[in-house]
Amino acid sequence: MSTYPTDCPVAATLDAFGDRWTLLIVRDLLRGITRYADLQRSLGPIAPNLLSARLKRMEEQGVVTREVYSERPLRAGYRLTERGHALAPIVITLGRFGIDQLGRPEPDYLAYHVGCGGRVPPTAWRCQGCGEDVPAGELELLDPHTVAARAPA
Amino acid sequence: MSTYPTDCPVAATLDAFGDRWTLLIVRDLLRGITRYADLQRSLGPIAPNLLSARLKRMEEQGVVTREVYSERPLRAGYRLTERGHALAPIVITLGRFGIDQLGRPEPDYLAYHVGCGGRVPPTAWRCQGCGEDVPAGELELLDPHTVAARAPA
Repeated sequence: MSTYPTDCPVAATLDAFGDRWTLLIVRDLLRGITRYADLQRSLGPIAPNLLSARLKRMEEQGVVTREVYSERPLRAGYRLTERGHALAPIVITLGRFGIDQLGRPEPDYLAYHVGCGGRVPPTAWRCQGCGEDVPAGELELLDPHTVAARAPA
Repeated sequence: MSTYPTDCPVAATLDAFGDRWTLLIVRDLLRGITRYADLQRSLGPIAPNLLSARLKRMEEQGVVTREVYSERPLRAGYRLTERGHALAPIVITLGRFGIDQLGRPEPDYLAYHVGCGGRVPPTAWRCQGCGEDVPAGELELLDPHTVAARAPA
């Protein structure tokens, strides 16, 4: 299935969960949408069999659980598992880019801290070195040797 | 081109930059890889015409710039623009999920703050409410009414 050579964690996540509909379903579950019919309404043009297939795969992958809340007619609801919830930062950073760089309006849903209800600004990444919040444009991926070589003597 | 009904910023970013190869190219440019040949080596099984096509599209989208550093033979290097750099948090959160949830080893590249060279732990999102760093599993997307309804009277 995988088309990448290494066990890069970025590639692994893209392989398993990088599908667009999967990430938009996670977005909606994070917004508190749980019912199949409400997911379908929110996702718009998704074909019903595609939505069912995605939800089934996400269940198999351990990111959603399915609960039947009515037998006649058959109606099911979906919730994120703990692993599914761990996809939240990906959805939030995708959204932040769309607002900041692609000119999309800020939606009425924002990132909140489940524990205290406070807002978490998606750009507030705290640096362990200087203690400051680091904007997205000041992040890079470096190996420790490069960082060491840069540091003042 | 777009297959989504709304102007959701998550969907907009997925439409423009959600392609797997695009995000893995961003990963490599963030790691300081710039030459076409080095990108190809890092990306492994990508077909040369596909890599060229992706880089060309990324140039048109304003996320990379191309510089020719040798005319004979023709050799070009690529760098992220400011907009391209704004994709860093997406790559970092994808990687964090792969390490924490899919059991991939932590790679030798990490997130660093360009300004001070300090490490930025990808899970350290600072909450504006309680001032604490919020782990991924405690983030959710809620509209302000839901948050207000939850707050203690």
